Formats: sequence, C-alpha cells, structure tokens
Amino acid sequence: MLKAVDEIRDLLGEDTVSVDSDDLDDHGYSEWSTSNTDVRPVAIIRPQTTEQVSSIACICTKYKVPMIPYGAGSSVEGNFSSPYSGVCLDLSGMDKIVAFHPEDMDIVVQAGVNWTNMNEEIKHTGLFLPLDPSPTALIGGMIATNCSGTNAMRYGTMKDYVINLTVVLSDGSVIKTRHRPRKTSAGYNLTGLFTGSEGTLGIITEATLKLAIVPEHFSVATATFSTVQEAADAAFKIMRRGVPLAALELMDDVQMRVINQSGGAGGRLWDENPTLFLKFSGSQNAVEDNINLAKEIVKSNSCRSFESAQTEDQMQSLWSARKQALWASLAVRPEGTQIWSTDVAVPLSRMAELIETSKEQASQLGLFTSVLGHVGDGNFHQIVMYNPDDEQQRQAVSDCVDEMMVRALEMEGTVSGEHGIGLGKKHCLQKELGSATIGVMKAIKDTLDPQ
Amino acid sequence: MLKAVDEIRDLLGEDTVSVDSDDLDDHGYSEWSTSNTDVRPVAIIRPQTTEQVSSIACICTKYKVPMIPYGAGSSVEGNFSSPYSGVCLDLSGMDKIVAFHPEDMDIVVQAGVNWTNMNEEIKHTGLFLPLDPSPTALIGGMIATNCSGTNAMRYGTMKDYVINLTVVLSDGSVIKTRHRPRKTSAGYNLTGLFTGSEGTLGIITEATLKLAIVPEHFSVATATFSTVQEAADAAFKIMRRGVPLAALELMDDVQMRVINQSGGAGGRLWDENPTLFLKFSGSQNAVEDNINLAKEIVKSNSCRSFESAQTEDQMQSLWSARKQALWASLAVRPEGTQIWSTDVAVPLSRMAELIETSKEQASQLGLFTSVLGHVGDGNFHQIVMYNPDDEQQRQAVSDCVDEMMVRALEMEGTVSGEHGIGLGKKHCLQKELGSATIGVMKAIKDTLDPQ
Repeated sequence: MLKAVDEIRDLLGEDTVSVDSDDLDDHGYSEWSTSNTDVRPVAIIRPQTTEQVSSIACICTKYKVPMIPYGAGSSVEGNFSSPYSGVCLDLSGMDKIVAFHPEDMDIVVQAGVNWTNMNEEIKHTGLFLPLDPSPTALIGGMIATNCSGTNAMRYGTMKDYVINLTVVLSDGSVIKTRHRPRKTSAGYNLTGLFTGSEGTLGIITEATLKLAIVPEHFSVATATFSTVQEAADAAFKIMRRGVPLAALELMDDVQMRVINQSGGAGGRLWDENPTLFLKFSGSQNAVEDNINLAKEIVKSNSCRSFESAQTEDQMQSLWSARKQALWASLAVRPEGTQIWSTDVAVPLSRMAELIETSKEQASQLGLFTSVLGHVGDGNFHQIVMYNPDDEQQRQAVSDCVDEMMVRALEMEGTVSGEHGIGLGKKHCLQKELGSATIGVMKAIKDTLDPQ
Repeated sequence: MLKAVDEIRDLLGEDTVSVDSDDLDDHGYSEWSTSNTDVRPVAIIRPQTTEQVSSIACICTKYKVPMIPYGAGSSVEGNFSSPYSGVCLDLSGMDKIVAFHPEDMDIVVQAGVNWTNMNEEIKHTGLFLPLDPSPTALIGGMIATNCSGTNAMRYGTMKDYVINLTVVLSDGSVIKTRHRPRKTSAGYNLTGLFTGSEGTLGIITEATLKLAIVPEHFSVATATFSTVQEAADAAFKIMRRGVPLAALELMDDVQMRVINQSGGAGGRLWDENPTLFLKFSGSQNAVEDNINLAKEIVKSNSCRSFESAQTEDQMQSLWSARKQALWASLAVRPEGTQIWSTDVAVPLSRMAELIETSKEQASQLGLFTSVLGHVGDGNFHQIVMYNPDDEQQRQAVSDCVDEMMVRALEMEGTVSGEHGIGLGKKHCLQKELGSATIGVMKAIKDTLDPQ
C-alpha cells in the first residue's frame, strides 16, 4: 500500500497526499454513523481532475490496493469506511461547476460540488436541484447513495436527476455513461447502475444533472392526530385525492417533545402529538385550493388541529420544526449517549403499523426513541438514543433495529430507503434480495472490479 | 434448434408451440418497422408462467439456441427481429393482473398485460399508469424499451414506474430485482438495468408498477406559430416559468396539413402552421390559472393564434388532432409507399434547430416528411414517406435519417429518445457512446448471457 502511495505522491505531488493521523481518522470514522471500523486508510489522496483519479486507479490496481471514494462523509451506514485499509480518495477538491445550461435546464458538475452552494449559485435563473439530503452533502456522494429527503414525494430521488456520469473504473479507464438529452432509450442504463452503487463499481468524478423550476409560491400547514395510524391514514387520503403536495412529512409525539425540549422551533412550543407537515407549491390559487382540500380531508379524518401559515414568517416557523428534528435530537441527548439513526421503507399502507410496532418494541427494551417519516414514500427514520459504553444497551438497540429490518422485509419493504447499505446493513441486504439476486449483483461487481 | 423445440413441446405440450409459417412471419416481420431481416424464428412458444419461461431458457441454453422475447410487436426498430433465428417467446398469453394494491398505489402484473386494458380495469380507483405509448403495447415490451409518449414531460418514462421485476436469465435462473417499497437505496439498481435492455439481458416475466392519481380536471389548448423555432421558443418559456403542464407537444406545418388531408380531426380543419398542443391538469382554479399564464406567454412570443377548449367536446377535438397524427400519415400516404418513422432527443435548446435542418435536408432530397415532437423532453419523431421498391429513394431516406442521427449526436443528443436501438440503430449506438462505454455494456451482457 505504501509503495502505491509513494508512486501517487511522485506523480501528483506532495500536496495531494496526506498521511496525517487526524486526517486518516477524519476519513475513517464518523460520529454520525453507527457503523465504524477500527481500520483506517493508509493515506488520503486529494485529486483535482478525472485524469488524476484515473492515474490513482491505475496505480492502486497495479499494487492491488483498495480505493475508497469519499465526499462529505455525511453518510450514516459506514458507506465510506475502509475495512481493508487502502487509500481514500477525497473528492471534495473537485468542486467546480463545469458548465451550466439554463436553456437546457441542466448543469455539469464535478463530484465534489456541494448541492446547497450550487443551488445558491444558480438561484437567479429560477432553477434548482430539488433534492434535500444533509446540507453538507456533495453531489458525488448523493449520487452514490441515491439520496433523497423531504422533497422525494414531489420530485423523486437522486436517480431521477442524473442525466449522465463520468466514471473512473477500477483499472483506470474512464467512461461517460451517455450524452446530455433529458430522455433516452439508447443502450443499457449505466447511469442508473452507478447511481446508488455506493462507490463500489467505479468512482464518479463528474455528472450532468437535470434541474427543476423553483415554484412561484409556497405554503406550509401542520395537522396533529392522536395516533401515528390516524396521521398516516389522513396522509394517504390526501395523496389518493391527488392533492399536489411539495412534501408530506410525519413526526411522532416523542419527536415533537424533543423539539420542545430543545427550545421549540420557530420561537414556539408545539402540541406533543403525532404531527403531519404539509408543504404546498404552485400558483397562488392552486396553493389555496390545495390547502383547503387538505384541510377538509384531515378534518374529516380524526385530526385534532390544523394550522396553515398565513405569512412568510409563520411558514418558516412551521417548517423549521420539521427541519430541526435531527439537530434537536442531538441537542437534548444526555451526556455520553449516542444516536442510532436508521432508515426503512415499506409499501405505503404498512408504514403506520411498522412505526407503531417498532416504537412499542423500543419502549419495552427501555430505549428512548423517536420517529420521523417521509410519509409520501413509505420511508421513515427511527432515532434511538443509547449509551455506547453500556454493552447491554448497545445490544438492545442493535436487536431493536435488526427486528425492525426483519419486519420491514416481511412487509415487502426495504432495509434502506435513502441511506444506503454501507457496512451497517450488509447482513440485511442478503435477507432482502436472496442469493440469486445478490449473485447477479456480485457478477456485475466482479466484471467491473475483478480485484 | 429443432431438437430444442421438440424438447420444449414434450415438456409444455403441443398447444404451447407453433411452427406455422404465417405465425413465424407475424413474429419475425413488422410493417411498422423499417428494420426487418429475412430470417425467421424456427418456432413460436407461448408460455403461461415464469416457471415455463425458465424451463424454456434451460432447454435453449443447453442447445445454444437464441431466445427472442416478444410482446405486442409494436416496436419500430427491429427490436424483436430474429437475425440468428432461434425460438420466439410470445409472452402475450401471460396477461394476468397478479395483485392490485390500491392502498399502496401499485400493481403486480405479468409481462403480457396490455396497458390500456389494465388502466381500464383499475379506473374506478382513480389510479392509472401514466405512460402513453402505442395503445397495443404490452407491459413487458414497454419496460424492455423504456417507452414513454406524450405524458413523459409531466410523468417521466417507463423506468420511473417500475418498482421491481421478475426476470428469467439466460440459464433459466429466476431473480426478483427487489421488494415492493416505492423508494429504495439498497443494492445495485438491477430494476433500472433490465428496464430498457430490450430483452437482451434476460426475459421480463412480471413487474410491480407504481401508479399515479388520475387528475381531477383536464383542459387543452393549441397555439400556432410561423416557424418551428418560434413554437419551440414559446414552449420553453412556458416551461421555464414553471407552468405545470400535463403535456406539451409540437406538430409542424406538414403534419397539420396531413391531418387536414386525412379529413381533419375533431370534425374540423386546422391552420397549417407549426402548432403547440398544451394539456393542463389539476384543480379547476389551477387549470384556469395555468391556461391564462400560458396564453400570456405565447401571446408575447410571436404566437399567431391561441385556442383553449371551453367544453369537453372541444377538448377532445383539440387533443384528437395530436393523437391521430400517425394514423393520419398512414391514411394519406400514396399507394405503395411506406413510412420511415424515426426518433431522436437532444438538449432542449437545440431541438428547433435540429428539426429545421432535418426538414430542409429531407426536402432537398425530394422526400415528403413531417415532424411531431415531445417538446418538453427535447424528443421528436420525423415521419418520412418513401417507395421501398425505389432503391434510390430508399437510400435517400436512409441517408437522411443517418445524417439526422449524426447531427443529434453533435448536439450531445441521443439516437433514440423512446423507440430503443433494436437492429435499426446498432451502428449509431457505437457512435453515440464510444468504445469504452460500449465495452462496459458488452461486459455486462457477457456476464448475464455468456452465450
């Protein structure tokens, strides 16, 4: 491995290579993630171009050294861990917008571009990339994870915004998956294959992304219910009536309490009941129509209260409660505890049942747990607080999460809606897909990365 | 090959196998397609279940006999031709809805289900599959081609509606690509890999499809312009303003004339100018807002006339002109001529230029040609009439289409937006993707289908 690092240093220069132990730790471990290993990469390489990535791949292949592509390090399942050591390719320096085509509603970027910076930069054109993962995330990692967030119900997931990819394969060869039209049926969908492959089939260095139009008007409303089941039922009725929503989110009673404990959101305290957060967008009239229709539906479906924003400030206040959920959880956790955040998705009608069973089981195990869900996708997160030094508690969380995965699979769901598999869920993926399907995935991996 | 057919007959029964010469011709040749071969399959096999398809694949692999999956035969690029003979698997008998989950907004179907029949069957639930290819198309072929049609701008293409696939691989093994959640980031996207692979990586026998909500209200408008460029400019301005459209279609002056020559549409004659067809959907107020906004935009962008439907009848009449385009072309063609229908997609801003150059070139070659476009996707079709017995004219059409492909590629476009590659565009795909990318596709093909 060190021979490879020397050769890379000789080729790309001293500044491109770091073996600083803090740097290695930063790239080999994440506090956000529950799946870490004790192993670290031997070096961090910071390439600037696709050609440099290609050279690094050639050298690593020659010496049979593992390569781990790294973006913002915001993934939570050990997706960027280095269990067999190797070199870590930190792509955050590849942060250039290569070409912006507002007239084609697309943009060409390097993998290290941060999505919030990019959206800020193109805001004046009325275009944006409508994903909503961690604000720190970089485009390459977002593609590798097929990320999504609160906007997925309306806009879809990352795979729906990738037009083409430039990928460096393990042997250093460079491919571009396709040209730049918004629609195609020409050849195998390699773009879709690399998207969501978590850096295991090749290293994404550049992407052309579709952009969407920033809507004219927004509005936000909340509705509270006595149970998660009632909230989910009302949510699905709104969807089935075809009310166009920009987002449809759920937080349970515990999560609402956490927000109040952390000082509230939008300068106020909230009802501590299961709460739906609805976002509307479109023309003024369309937004008003849709709020009225949604209100009518929730009112006749056991809703305890319905509140819609009348001003921009109120809108910010209502939505901020949802957006601050994770930070609120981090803020209120007792000293020494950590957060285990997990992610499943099931067919829409099964979501409430899975949430309620999982909450019940966690509370039987004496765990503090809250839930937030992307209801419109049947996808939700459970956040469990635990003391990592208490082996019994650690085991209890692990069992709790594993049982939730098993139940999700029994409901024809998936063990990951948007966080990916990483190291943390490898054992679950086998259960989800079975050996024949995993066999095809392995065959593809062997073909593209034989070592 | 005949040994394999005998073994299949022994296993599945006499009724499953046909060697009737008309049947062979029907499955090996299509009048709609410009890419046919003289070779025919040796037999047509009509399996009823995934297990039967698997048995057929085992036998064919043992005897190294090519397998050609066949659906409705409505593709136009020789996608179901049998250039090396072999057995044709006609899946049209696998036409069962396996499970319908309105509560999850999805449906599980066999590959031979016809999409219009399916939509009719589930209409009472307010759900539908929002694709719009040939009315005769079957789900398996729609997936294999990654089809789309007039609804793609609003709803996306077939790949956006496939949740999972059951696929029989060449060696007879059966895989299910994933479970049934609407969203996932678990494992490689095999669903996306088989979608659009035109039957070359495996035989799709079953699929779970996402469904969308039938909108509450529809309306339709048309706007005429002096040039295709002006029409396209206005179309893109409507898109960039974020006006939500259900569809945005273009027909050129020649296509409008063809409709009038074939007796008009909706009981009337039309202005013979480049015409935009706009479809709106949503709440009553939203539809009205959007029509007004679209009208304002086209009026300040060189529009000659704008007409919006006031009644259901008018709406049918306006939209029928668009829907009847292909039939109108078939109706007015002179005795003995055939139609060469082709399909490209380019970045949005280049579409008008490509259409105008291609029209000009066709007219220089003395060809009768018309254009209809899915403007919102930068995707359009050119329909050229020619006499197949006139070798010079045939060559002229072929050159004209080839040059259009070359120009589309120069504009960073694709040689197929929605028809696929088949036999007809193999030579173009190499030009589009280059040898490294084609190499990866070939490697995947070799892995999944080594013979």
